[in-house]
Amino acid sequence: MEIIKSVKQLQQTAEQLRQTGKRIGFVPTMGFLHEGHQALMEKARNENDILIVSIFVNPLQFGPGEDFDTYPRDEERDVQIAKDKQVDILFLPETEDMYPDEQAITMRVVRRVDVLCGKSREGHFDGVVAVLTKLFHLAQPHRVYFGMKDAQQVAVVDALVKDFNFPLEIVPVATVREEDGLAKSSRNVYLSNQERKEAKEIYQALLHGKQLIVDGEKNPSTIVKEVEDFINKRTHGKIDYVELLTYPELNTTTVICRQVILAAAVHFEKARLIDNLVFDQSGFISEGL
Amino acid sequence: MEIIKSVKQLQQTAEQLRQTGKRIGFVPTMGFLHEGHQALMEKARNENDILIVSIFVNPLQFGPGEDFDTYPRDEERDVQIAKDKQVDILFLPETEDMYPDEQAITMRVVRRVDVLCGKSREGHFDGVVAVLTKLFHLAQPHRVYFGMKDAQQVAVVDALVKDFNFPLEIVPVATVREEDGLAKSSRNVYLSNQERKEAKEIYQALLHGKQLIVDGEKNPSTIVKEVEDFINKRTHGKIDYVELLTYPELNTTTVICRQVILAAAVHFEKARLIDNLVFDQSGFISEGL
Repeated sequence: MEIIKSVKQLQQTAEQLRQTGKRIGFVPTMGFLHEGHQALMEKARNENDILIVSIFVNPLQFGPGEDFDTYPRDEERDVQIAKDKQVDILFLPETEDMYPDEQAITMRVVRRVDVLCGKSREGHFDGVVAVLTKLFHLAQPHRVYFGMKDAQQVAVVDALVKDFNFPLEIVPVATVREEDGLAKSSRNVYLSNQERKEAKEIYQALLHGKQLIVDGEKNPSTIVKEVEDFINKRTHGKIDYVELLTYPELNTTTVICRQVILAAAVHFEKARLIDNLVFDQSGFISEGL
Repeated sequence: MEIIKSVKQLQQTAEQLRQTGKRIGFVPTMGFLHEGHQALMEKARNENDILIVSIFVNPLQFGPGEDFDTYPRDEERDVQIAKDKQVDILFLPETEDMYPDEQAITMRVVRRVDVLCGKSREGHFDGVVAVLTKLFHLAQPHRVYFGMKDAQQVAVVDALVKDFNFPLEIVPVATVREEDGLAKSSRNVYLSNQERKEAKEIYQALLHGKQLIVDGEKNPSTIVKEVEDFINKRTHGKIDYVELLTYPELNTTTVICRQVILAAAVHFEKARLIDNLVFDQSGFISEGL
């Protein structure tokens, strides 16, 4: 595995690889790699000649009150995981090399952001699309892998690629789950024993909502209400949101047609958990896009 | 010469060309090709294996009161010129193919725009960088050619490429001039005989300003004043602006160091003419970037 720290060097290397006809798969991360990241790497490893992974905690996507400084970092462990996953190039840029000057041009996401987690993270996705635009130009991938756990991010990146005709394919990867269905997350360790038992009910609630639609329920607010009741009855968590939207457009809808996302965020004592399902009217769970 | 109208087809063609190791030169235009465009094509033809020219009147870069609908178009003549200039691929996309949906993500130029022509064209450069981002992803060029007549555009595109690490090189091309020094422009035909004689004095005024700096004048406002006086004495035009700024940053400056731009815009009866010089302290006229 080659570790590249220089922006320029990654770009030159990627350029050369493309010229030799190699297919490049890319997994952009902020490090502190968990099983979700590893699932992305495994899929990307299988589908491409070259696997590039980046680790960069991007200051642009953190708001003023957010945890940029305390965001967990463990480079040594991440390097070992990347080696284990047969990564070819691990890109570890410095902030000064990524942002040598203040940006003269900013990007602003004006759709797909005022719902779900985007509501409470003003400007977050602006920073995400800016850094991804840079990383896409540096790694020059054919395919880029994102986890469907953050389905809103996948929707925003889908818009980025379509709006600006990036010559690459976004590959959404299904959420990795524990045996009882709980979506894997670094934050699950913050759950008490009792909370951990209850947490699986979020996924069950989403499956219940999906079943209502399959059984013919047509009213989105009825479905949302049922999912909320399901969670409230079976957990002590406090619901942040339950939303049913079109996917990937993330529009509210009064009729359920084509592909939708049913998503929930629930606060427990020390952890906020999110989960979602993307599916069509017949209940077929989709890969995402 | 191949004419391509489909966005997807251009991207696929460019991808294939790059894989065979061909160097792609690209000249993005809004058509109604004049000698300035032809100079760009000639330089791009000489320096690359493949020459791609696009003609697209981009609605995004026109303001509400501006002349999008009446912008001059002459496709037949443009096609002939492109053939004469040995263009390999002429890209003529439809607006619906370039912008199938309303953009979910917008770009905003926040530096290098509140000076020169940018002052009076709110949002213009936002539309320019958005369409260029798309065109760069479609044509996938190694080098892109822009005329220094619109030096502010070159400065903004320079920021675009640096801020977002586009894997390409911007090549500024010197302004093409009439024998008496007047910068060539489609708008010169709107000048009366008397105005045409006077118009050459804009370039002379800029040369005069440059000479003042070479002779040791250090005060930017003195230089601007002298250039304004020069134009006012020798023409009946009404000065829109004379500005002396750093280049390509386009910052105002109290000391003249490194590279600067001395630029003027002058209203005549039916034409607004612009011109500029980019040079260093010793008076060496630069190619631009």
